[in-house]
Amino acid sequence: MVFEAQKKRALERLRILGAGEEVGEIQDKINSLDDGFFTTSSCSGRIILICLPEIGAKREARVIGKWHRQVRKGEVLEAMSNAMPSIKGEIWLIAQSPIVHVTCRSLDKATALLRIAIESGFKYSGIKAITKDNEKVMVELMSTERMDVPLASDDVMFCSEAYRDFILAKANFTLERGKDKLKRFGYELKEPE
Amino acid sequence: MVFEAQKKRALERLRILGAGEEVGEIQDKINSLDDGFFTTSSCSGRIILICLPEIGAKREARVIGKWHRQVRKGEVLEAMSNAMPSIKGEIWLIAQSPIVHVTCRSLDKATALLRIAIESGFKYSGIKAITKDNEKVMVELMSTERMDVPLASDDVMFCSEAYRDFILAKANFTLERGKDKLKRFGYELKEPE
Repeated sequence: MVFEAQKKRALERLRILGAGEEVGEIQDKINSLDDGFFTTSSCSGRIILICLPEIGAKREARVIGKWHRQVRKGEVLEAMSNAMPSIKGEIWLIAQSPIVHVTCRSLDKATALLRIAIESGFKYSGIKAITKDNEKVMVELMSTERMDVPLASDDVMFCSEAYRDFILAKANFTLERGKDKLKRFGYELKEPE
Repeated sequence: MVFEAQKKRALERLRILGAGEEVGEIQDKINSLDDGFFTTSSCSGRIILICLPEIGAKREARVIGKWHRQVRKGEVLEAMSNAMPSIKGEIWLIAQSPIVHVTCRSLDKATALLRIAIESGFKYSGIKAITKDNEKVMVELMSTERMDVPLASDDVMFCSEAYRDFILAKANFTLERGKDKLKRFGYELKEPE
């Protein structure tokens, strides 16, 4: 399929499925900036609670709570206690950076976008794939904000309440930092020369 | 400087400075695989203790302990107590994935290497920079293994001993998983076609 048709389909999907507020603004900006870009799956950043059936098997992780905004202690505890009776393994709280996927029509456009992203603090960004004819280049924008903390193991909550409160405050702070970076990136985002 | 001269200089630097055992083997393999590749700064993965003067200011972090191997509780506690009297802020324990930087002579070589890396589990890999003439492409290989856990704040160790033991076991496990991935990548690494 030609680039224009793929872009049209991606914009249609974005219109139907929507996106988180902060990342939606960035996607709109990228999509209207230049014919040579369109965004695909993207996220403003999130806090998730996952249950890992055994050590390190993140692939088999089950998500038991997910928030794209700051979390309150009560809702985290509720998500944990809903999952608890059946848990074998561990519960981790994870705060994730925003992520934006952009398909670019040329390598020059991709590297220009990548430079702006890295300068705006999206330091884990990179080109993830290039088609054989160099006509489509997939850029992933990601920043370093991240927290991965185990909270419970085999039905036992093994961190103190004070520590858990601290972790939640940190997770909320991490999320906000990620969203601030999205704003900064949006501000830096001008038509690449 | 031409590619060959840069490669020669990079190999010389590697010979003098050395590298961690596991990543050194990978670097040797990449450097001898093909004239079109050379490695620069790389790491087998590590566990670090950092002190953050204020919330989120990772840029001003001071490293107070660093290990490229499994850690024992005693040495972590010692590093913390050495730093403790003067600490304002937080102490975090961070386990980091292996990282390998490879300069590639062409885009085709870079994308071939990237494909092998992602298939071997280095899912956070990407092309980070391309020179204007497409003659040098910098690939960063990185996997998803990562843990960032706060342990103390303003001189107070606020997690229990049992929790701290668990975190250290996790950090050691994370390090080993990263090293296993390096081995798998080395095994998959054949001359790109």
